[in-house]
Amino acid sequence: MTPPPAPGPAGLGTPAPADLVVTGCTALTHDAHGRIVFVDDATIVVRDGVIASVTAGGTRAGGSAATGVPEAAEHLDGRGTVALPGLVNCHTHTPMVALRGLAEDLPVHAWFNDWIWPVESQLTERVVGLGARLACAELIRGGVTTFADHYFAMDEVAAATEESGLRAVLGQAYFSTQGPEGRAASLDFALRRRGAADGRITTCLAPHAPYTVDDADLAATAELAAEHGLLVHIHAAENREQTDNSLARHGRTPIEVLERAGLLDVDLLLAHATGLDAGRDLPVLRRAGGRVAVASAPRGYLKFGWDTTPVRALREAGVPVGLATDGAASNNTLDVWESMTLTALVQKYVERDPTWLTARQALDHATSQSARAVGLGDTIGSLAPGRQADLVLVDLTGPHTQPVHDLAATLVHSARSADVRTAIVAGRVLMRDRELLTLDVPDIAGELAELLPALVDRGHGKRIQEYRG
Amino acid sequence: MTPPPAPGPAGLGTPAPADLVVTGCTALTHDAHGRIVFVDDATIVVRDGVIASVTAGGTRAGGSAATGVPEAAEHLDGRGTVALPGLVNCHTHTPMVALRGLAEDLPVHAWFNDWIWPVESQLTERVVGLGARLACAELIRGGVTTFADHYFAMDEVAAATEESGLRAVLGQAYFSTQGPEGRAASLDFALRRRGAADGRITTCLAPHAPYTVDDADLAATAELAAEHGLLVHIHAAENREQTDNSLARHGRTPIEVLERAGLLDVDLLLAHATGLDAGRDLPVLRRAGGRVAVASAPRGYLKFGWDTTPVRALREAGVPVGLATDGAASNNTLDVWESMTLTALVQKYVERDPTWLTARQALDHATSQSARAVGLGDTIGSLAPGRQADLVLVDLTGPHTQPVHDLAATLVHSARSADVRTAIVAGRVLMRDRELLTLDVPDIAGELAELLPALVDRGHGKRIQEYRG
Repeated sequence: MTPPPAPGPAGLGTPAPADLVVTGCTALTHDAHGRIVFVDDATIVVRDGVIASVTAGGTRAGGSAATGVPEAAEHLDGRGTVALPGLVNCHTHTPMVALRGLAEDLPVHAWFNDWIWPVESQLTERVVGLGARLACAELIRGGVTTFADHYFAMDEVAAATEESGLRAVLGQAYFSTQGPEGRAASLDFALRRRGAADGRITTCLAPHAPYTVDDADLAATAELAAEHGLLVHIHAAENREQTDNSLARHGRTPIEVLERAGLLDVDLLLAHATGLDAGRDLPVLRRAGGRVAVASAPRGYLKFGWDTTPVRALREAGVPVGLATDGAASNNTLDVWESMTLTALVQKYVERDPTWLTARQALDHATSQSARAVGLGDTIGSLAPGRQADLVLVDLTGPHTQPVHDLAATLVHSARSADVRTAIVAGRVLMRDRELLTLDVPDIAGELAELLPALVDRGHGKRIQEYRG
Repeated sequence: MTPPPAPGPAGLGTPAPADLVVTGCTALTHDAHGRIVFVDDATIVVRDGVIASVTAGGTRAGGSAATGVPEAAEHLDGRGTVALPGLVNCHTHTPMVALRGLAEDLPVHAWFNDWIWPVESQLTERVVGLGARLACAELIRGGVTTFADHYFAMDEVAAATEESGLRAVLGQAYFSTQGPEGRAASLDFALRRRGAADGRITTCLAPHAPYTVDDADLAATAELAAEHGLLVHIHAAENREQTDNSLARHGRTPIEVLERAGLLDVDLLLAHATGLDAGRDLPVLRRAGGRVAVASAPRGYLKFGWDTTPVRALREAGVPVGLATDGAASNNTLDVWESMTLTALVQKYVERDPTWLTARQALDHATSQSARAVGLGDTIGSLAPGRQADLVLVDLTGPHTQPVHDLAATLVHSARSADVRTAIVAGRVLMRDRELLTLDVPDIAGELAELLPALVDRGHGKRIQEYRG
């Protein structure tokens, strides 16, 4: 990429042409204290994939020195919409959309041992690639511009990311039952794919969980993360039963196991953490040397009948909580907008406090906290000059989002992922007026459907692991 | 309405022309035991607003004796969609969409006393009418074909119902503070509007709640309901605090208060019932002489931090539970599809049982149980010959609803209200391919917006009631 031509001296000419300009929207921005500020009638200028400016006023299309709206290669009329930072799915397994709805209304033991792990023993790279592409289509249509994926055959997911135009934080999962090769493959993937797709791909190490990766492997992972400056993305304390079992087996909670392995001294993304032991784990998280964050996928916790992520306690401990969906095999959807809404609703319920987790707090989780959770706190998550131009335009003209008395409440409690009309990543439009521009859903879904009978046949009696939590 | 011409003798000619035929969809039907059965490649024939037949096969468009698909005035290609009975919103206050998002993140006392009841003291018929129309647009777009409304100035809501083409069960709310005139006006409305809009409007008596309507008024209401064969629709045991306060004040739970007034001997629709006292109230409900049902609006309970409706206990007591949204001032949306999804998720969570409230059970609440709840159990709620042709076509071709391993799960946990493409009431298409055919949203929302500043001004210091629960 070449740098854009420098603009002329102020007041002495028209600004240099931009790549993309959005006019007439209301923009969700953050002030110097990180508080959300809505800018009415905003103009967003994008150059070289980066936000150049977000200013109030100047809705006239086309270049005009009088209004300060520069000429641009592409102009989007944002009237009737709110521009938000694109949503971030902080923990998912995109290829698992292939298993959406396969194993329903089951306890987690049966879900893993009787269904998911037997089926996953038959995964092929082709299924992973098609599943990832179908998932990318769903993510884009739902207003997600970045996803953190933790799965197998991740070169296929990297290819899907490249093709879709999305941004992703990718990690190749491993179990200790794979021997040292599992960890080595995860590192190899992380180093090979780091910075791929014009920098849209960042990578991480992805040990599966403290109950499937042993202490030695966890400690080696911490060393590799420190050596190579990599984020570690791991399932931890997914539910209370796992914490209780960890205490019974090792005398330590899963979080204490991670601390002992040195993983709290590196950048760490913990998936779920619904089974945190408040008395033991919160002090551990408070004294962490690395940047530790949690990804919360509240829909699945309801569905399994688990506790939810203790968002209020984590806030008090200074731990960001990003929004996630987990995989569609358990969650049925990759709808991060729904995760935002459910986080607000479920947190009010479990704390029995309707004044907690306000709509603005939910938007903070969806933007700043999610960006920090995946290690991109300085790059995405805010519509500000210098940030990546990852944004979505949300249509509020539908009857279900009118009238607007409180825009934050309208976004969190009335709008839906289906109201996202346009999605942009690094300045490139991936969906315009609900039309996907980079992926062909009928083709992908059609080819995937042909592979499903062989995939879901469980007659072989194998499974990739035994879930004992 | 004149009866349709009789079809010719079987095999001796083409069937008589139908009004509407849907082909190529998958139809959600019920077997003789009330269990859900999906019929693939279904043809649905509608005559005179009523379902004439639902049969498998015969997707070719146009009349053909060979396929059994009759000629029809209107043909809808249902390929890629599921036809469901239109959803029922069993408890709402449609005009309150005007207050959507006005009073957020508040406890219920402040919500009523500081915001809703002061603002409602300034309601005008015009605001009610516009709000009801905006709500009807939202309902249709969300796949709702029948709504049960409990509010003021209900002639305006009846007019909106007539204009929108929806079906509705309408009741004029009253408090005992209005004196005998409140009850009289509710009866007058119920008798005047019963059967209006070509029979799409049914009516009910609508006392507000046991905490705002005294025992004498409740008893008189029961007598009027019995005399005139009217359903009674009332808020009851909205939360546990109300039950506790009722016990402290009267020595009886709200349900016991209703029983004492004779209201359990008539057809009764209880809104919410999250504060049921299992030990005292369930035996009362079991021995009810009338048809008693509950409307559950789970989103608002989460938002207020309340318990939820005890669906499992009500099922064991033989009480149908219909789905609802309450008004948008508390619930932010009239999205009954979301109520269906949340009912499944929240029930699993509160019972700590992932095997309970399966996707099929959720669909049963959304169809049969909701129809029964609003007193239309023989008329709507099932795609069967002789039932009203109230149905919606749900598009499952989106990436978020592919692949389909379990259609019930796809509908409840992956599909969204925005996937409803077409909505039909009494055989009339009210929305085609997401386009509303009976209501003009920009006009309605624009006129409503002009009236909002005067509506929401609370400088007068008045309120229509004092909430003490």
